[in-house]
Amino acid sequence: MQITDNFDSGNIRVIDASDASNIQLEIKKDNQSDFYQWFHFKLQTDLSANGDRLEHVMHLNNAGKAAYVEGWEDYQAVASYDREHWFRVPTQYDGEKLTITLTPEYDSVYFAYFAPYSYERHQDLIHNAQMHLDCQLQVLGQTLDGRDMTLLKIGEEGEGKRKVWITARQHPGETMAEWFVEGMLDRLLDEDDGVARALLNKTVFYIVPNMNPDGSARGHLRTNAVGANLNREWLEPTMERSPEVFLVREKMLATGVDMFLDVHGDEALPVNFVAGCEGVVAYDARHKALEDKFKEIMIAITPEFQDERGYDKDEPGKANTTVGTNWVGNQFKCLAYTIEMPFKDNDLLPDYIVGWSDERSSILGRDFLTGVYHMVDDLR
Amino acid sequence: MQITDNFDSGNIRVIDASDASNIQLEIKKDNQSDFYQWFHFKLQTDLSANGDRLEHVMHLNNAGKAAYVEGWEDYQAVASYDREHWFRVPTQYDGEKLTITLTPEYDSVYFAYFAPYSYERHQDLIHNAQMHLDCQLQVLGQTLDGRDMTLLKIGEEGEGKRKVWITARQHPGETMAEWFVEGMLDRLLDEDDGVARALLNKTVFYIVPNMNPDGSARGHLRTNAVGANLNREWLEPTMERSPEVFLVREKMLATGVDMFLDVHGDEALPVNFVAGCEGVVAYDARHKALEDKFKEIMIAITPEFQDERGYDKDEPGKANTTVGTNWVGNQFKCLAYTIEMPFKDNDLLPDYIVGWSDERSSILGRDFLTGVYHMVDDLR
Amino acid sequence: MQITDNFDSGNIRVIDASDASNIQLEIKKDNQSDFYQWFHFKLQTDLSANGDRLEHVMHLNNAGKAAYVEGWEDYQAVASYDREHWFRVPTQYDGEKLTITLTPEYDSVYFAYFAPYSYERHQDLIHNAQMHLDCQLQVLGQTLDGRDMTLLKIGEEGEGKRKVWITARQHPGETMAEWFVEGMLDRLLDEDDGVARALLNKTVFYIVPNMNPDGSARGHLRTNAVGANLNREWLEPTMERSPEVFLVREKMLATGVDMFLDVHGDEALPVNFVAGCEGVVAYDARHKALEDKFKEIMIAITPEFQDERGYDKDEPGKANTTVGTNWVGNQFKCLAYTIEMPFKDNDLLPDYIVGWSDERSSILGRDFLTGVYHMVDDLR
Amino acid sequence: MQITDNFDSGNIRVIDASDASNIQLEIKKDNQSDFYQWFHFKLQTDLSANGDRLEHVMHLNNAGKAAYVEGWEDYQAVASYDREHWFRVPTQYDGEKLTITLTPEYDSVYFAYFAPYSYERHQDLIHNAQMHLDCQLQVLGQTLDGRDMTLLKIGEEGEGKRKVWITARQHPGETMAEWFVEGMLDRLLDEDDGVARALLNKTVFYIVPNMNPDGSARGHLRTNAVGANLNREWLEPTMERSPEVFLVREKMLATGVDMFLDVHGDEALPVNFVAGCEGVVAYDARHKALEDKFKEIMIAITPEFQDERGYDKDEPGKANTTVGTNWVGNQFKCLAYTIEMPFKDNDLLPDYIVGWSDERSSILGRDFLTGVYHMVDDLR
Ligand SMILES: [Ca+2]
Ligand SMILES: [Ca+2]
Ligand SMILES: [Ca+2]
Ligand SMILES: [Ca+2]
Repeated sequence: MQITDNFDSGNIRVIDASDASNIQLEIKKDNQSDFYQWFHFKLQTDLSANGDRLEHVMHLNNAGKAAYVEGWEDYQAVASYDREHWFRVPTQYDGEKLTITLTPEYDSVYFAYFAPYSYERHQDLIHNAQMHLDCQLQVLGQTLDGRDMTLLKIGEEGEGKRKVWITARQHPGETMAEWFVEGMLDRLLDEDDGVARALLNKTVFYIVPNMNPDGSARGHLRTNAVGANLNREWLEPTMERSPEVFLVREKMLATGVDMFLDVHGDEALPVNFVAGCEGVVAYDARHKALEDKFKEIMIAITPEFQDERGYDKDEPGKANTTVGTNWVGNQFKCLAYTIEMPFKDNDLLPDYIVGWSDERSSILGRDFLTGVYHMVDDLR
Repeated sequence: MQITDNFDSGNIRVIDASDASNIQLEIKKDNQSDFYQWFHFKLQTDLSANGDRLEHVMHLNNAGKAAYVEGWEDYQAVASYDREHWFRVPTQYDGEKLTITLTPEYDSVYFAYFAPYSYERHQDLIHNAQMHLDCQLQVLGQTLDGRDMTLLKIGEEGEGKRKVWITARQHPGETMAEWFVEGMLDRLLDEDDGVARALLNKTVFYIVPNMNPDGSARGHLRTNAVGANLNREWLEPTMERSPEVFLVREKMLATGVDMFLDVHGDEALPVNFVAGCEGVVAYDARHKALEDKFKEIMIAITPEFQDERGYDKDEPGKANTTVGTNWVGNQFKCLAYTIEMPFKDNDLLPDYIVGWSDERSSILGRDFLTGVYHMVDDLR
Repeated sequence: MQITDNFDSGNIRVIDASDASNIQLEIKKDNQSDFYQWFHFKLQTDLSANGDRLEHVMHLNNAGKAAYVEGWEDYQAVASYDREHWFRVPTQYDGEKLTITLTPEYDSVYFAYFAPYSYERHQDLIHNAQMHLDCQLQVLGQTLDGRDMTLLKIGEEGEGKRKVWITARQHPGETMAEWFVEGMLDRLLDEDDGVARALLNKTVFYIVPNMNPDGSARGHLRTNAVGANLNREWLEPTMERSPEVFLVREKMLATGVDMFLDVHGDEALPVNFVAGCEGVVAYDARHKALEDKFKEIMIAITPEFQDERGYDKDEPGKANTTVGTNWVGNQFKCLAYTIEMPFKDNDLLPDYIVGWSDERSSILGRDFLTGVYHMVDDLR
Repeated sequence: MQITDNFDSGNIRVIDASDASNIQLEIKKDNQSDFYQWFHFKLQTDLSANGDRLEHVMHLNNAGKAAYVEGWEDYQAVASYDREHWFRVPTQYDGEKLTITLTPEYDSVYFAYFAPYSYERHQDLIHNAQMHLDCQLQVLGQTLDGRDMTLLKIGEEGEGKRKVWITARQHPGETMAEWFVEGMLDRLLDEDDGVARALLNKTVFYIVPNMNPDGSARGHLRTNAVGANLNREWLEPTMERSPEVFLVREKMLATGVDMFLDVHGDEALPVNFVAGCEGVVAYDARHKALEDKFKEIMIAITPEFQDERGYDKDEPGKANTTVGTNWVGNQFKCLAYTIEMPFKDNDLLPDYIVGWSDERSSILGRDFLTGVYHMVDDLR
């Protein structure tokens, strides 16, 4: 039996893997940070003496001190034998340890907090995108580990064109955010899709599929290579601590922003929802009208979206403007939403086999494009 | 040089194919009918003496007497070298002849009125569908040529479940209707799609992907094996003349209908639109409210749909109830719409390479599912 | 319950389909012929009163008078739910009736003598082929039903180039022959395949993927539209009775032939083998040396091939020169082989799930290309 | 303009990338080693002031001191825009610098010594393999960087079963070796392939698709994480310096070996060839007969293989037994071959677009399986 994490976004520390019925593990902290919750490891299984498959019981001993302990309530871990299909496996949380139990059907099995999205797949995504006529691949600069900050510009800039910015995965452990972008890109670059074509007649998209490639590759939950929570860096980012935000923010200031969607996952809530910038100084009735319309159309478009559960609203003027959505909404006086997807399942439409999944995230990304299409004439 | 039509839905008569620069053709009439407009043939090309590709000029001499001559205005025929990708080719109409001109890039090329949908593909479609847990394949009976009238029932019947009926291709030359159904089925049977899953929690779908398999295989425009226009047979269908309608109507009477979509193509109008049953006796304010809501949501969902251009409205009580949509809307007092897609292009979002296409029809079918989802709670 | 055959290559007559446990069927004869053995039909299943799947017992009553009754010994019919995957089903032959028994897992199921290869797929095959630089699609003329006799010329003619002719499916019910050609074409048109590239440097291929498209579409076993057994027409073919052979023979006389493979299936023998032209007048030691070398290399290349079981050898000068292989071998003094694949299984490497199959036929087609590669320098 | 290498198997040092027409680069040495030759980097292109694509001239300044300078003669680098299709680009060697010139068609382009094979793809490969009934995924232990040494056992061990060992990529920059294994695995795990099925009836395969995962991920040419050339470690491997060899060797000693193929790439020779163990003490006439037969059959099977050019033969008893093939051939008195593929092209069958390529390597892997099939009865 062997448990390893030396691969893209791997994250586990093995305490004791000598007994399949009692495997002791810990989640590693993000580098230079106390945040941790993302886990991703591979189990090479033991067989019993007579060659039967054994039940493997894996305890994540330090789960009770993770960043969002409410994330473990009613949570089921995902696993995969072929690295393509991820399914939920029996998982229990006792307030201290998270315990995953599985009798594997094949020799080797991966476990993760959510279906991973590797840096290799990221590079495939952006390089496939650049082959389309409408798409430009731009490198804004480098991260602290020397990875690219890549922006996909889709559509032609021009008089009267609206500028829609999409960013994903500021928090690298929220991999559903990049699956969401993959689905949205698939549709946006489909030459037969009417929504995409109509949108590109009047809109330019600026899409950052991965705001935090270093944290992603390192297997971080929430921070970049030096422990910076990028979604608290938007007020005063620096090239030393948060070049990811610095570079994107500079580009936004250069292009302007008419609409902003920042894609995330939420550890605790088992629904999809959005969070706006109602607490920023510039927020006004026009802002609110845009928000309400967008939520209404998204509710109409897909049962995966809802507006009853979500974050508490900020009081007027009390928003934390270090947060991307708040900073952008305030700076550009534009519709700015954080999109949150669950790590667990969508309780309104539960799927006991896969829960909320990579595929469902991608489909939601497709469907959000319809929402953008509906808004684009009203943005200014 | 050779022009042939002995394949699924082939339809041409060769008058003179001796000179590539002046090929004389005629469209055959539907059997036992005067309708004609669907054409589908294959050209085996001639090379010049020195092996160069020649321009081929093909005149459809009897175009001016076809069923819908306004269909030839601004119309471009489709062609394919590989039978998968269909592109528009230069086409002119002089009031009498339709003239198609092409210098083929490969040895053999198919031409058609619209991207064909063969009986083989139809059988693949329904047999792939039956492999899904939620789907039943039912044979309602046989056509006059001995083909199956196949119904796909998707979802479980049950207390309070709404019944949505979809029929396509009563007019067999309107192949876009089956491409539409293929797209809708793809989505409806996708286990990861939230719209599909939410719909199937409260709806049963009864889908007839091809209402006229005999006319389809025979290369008809508008009628079945014995020249019956099925969409004029709904009041008094018979097993002798219109078993296709008879069998479907009997099943509808057995199951009930809460919503009905009958999918068609329109020869003349270069837009997508719907036509309701406003002229039937049972039509009332509730009917109208449902219609308006459905059109509104479809406009919101996709720029491929519009409600400004379409058919003239029937006067109250003056509807032709031999037409499927009218008969169903009246009989079941339900929302009943004919969906019309263009043979030409969608002028609101023109694509000069492919025009309105098989792919766009499929995507529209996907998108109509969102419209159904939005309506299903209001139907009764 | 319903049993139908009105589709490409369908062939069954229903005597009585009222009782799932005792379904009475007959195989139809080829048109204007007494040959019959190919069957292909679809069963729409009955459920029991409580919705359970029933066992269906289908008797082919006239099996005992079919063309090759030894073909029914140890034979298992094939079935498919999705028209892509064909599996063997329990089948018994009592000397009179062939009885197929299945409790279907889905509503609709196809049965056939072997995995069908439709005219639609044939058209896809040849039109995909023509998209490759090295391939020309030529139409030699028309069959009696008005279908194309299509020749694929692959490679450039030139000084010293060898001419290899491949024909398949003279006997239309031997569908494995076209699956074989599909596999061979896949490889021959693969630009990365060294065998294909080396061959095309010194060889031109003339491939007729389907010698009998009329018989194929009609669901015949052995003859064309007017009952002609094409493989007995090579001495004096006529445009009236056997245009398929007439046209191909004329082309052969125009191009010359250095090697000929005619692909078939054999009803009785459960092995792959070849049959040569040892009984023709022109046969000599050179002929024999070529044959022996080819068999030796094929035995080396694949365990699916063998040379221990096969047809009895013709005595010198006693060959039937109405047979394609004999006529060609004699006329062109070239290596000429009939390739025979089983309808049953390859007993040397049995697969109880699928028996000899479409996929295995395709792989054998790929592997025969290696055999051709090895021979091509020795042919003249 | 930006040149980066922070991705799987990336390897370049940027000296000066300020001027597209004169970019100065260096290849990094393998860690704790003086070997270098593998390069892999990404160029984010500059446009001219008016938006035109610029020619980019990239000098690898230290090429003249690389491990195999004869490898640069007539060598063309590979590039890719989509990371799937790799094509050759104009490359010159002046005895000192290797200069690559390209006017890219898209914004971002990868360059490499040969088509890369990433650790992500490696993990996909072995985990797809384990889903097959016949395949076991075994982890032999860990590398110095903590990656798995993975063995795929294919087929059931049993009385009289031959044991064929395949290892690849001891030298990590020889990525063609893992493409070769991918092709061989595709065929070996294809349930319809007769060669695979016949082989698995009498053979067990032990396949190590990547002998050097650390060097691969690090972008090394020739050594592991601590600079050990694994193919000089077979006599006395240690867990400290060469656990990769230690673990595989232990397993070989446990299972026995009846045939061994060790897959490599050769920098200089533009052909495929094999190198045996003629210089080992145990080498005898039986050894030679096996070698000759294997070469003969491979020559028959594919024009990509030849035996005229290759390495000089070792004198009797003078072999370097630290080399895998020598150690295994001597230890197990078995057929043991190093397979060498070119980095350049196969001069016998040149392809000016792609040269020797990932696809051709995979096809060669497929074809070698036929060679193994032919040998397996003679091995003992
Ligand atoms: Ca977050
Ligand atoms: Ca119509
Ligand atoms: Ca035969
Ligand atoms: Ca090497």
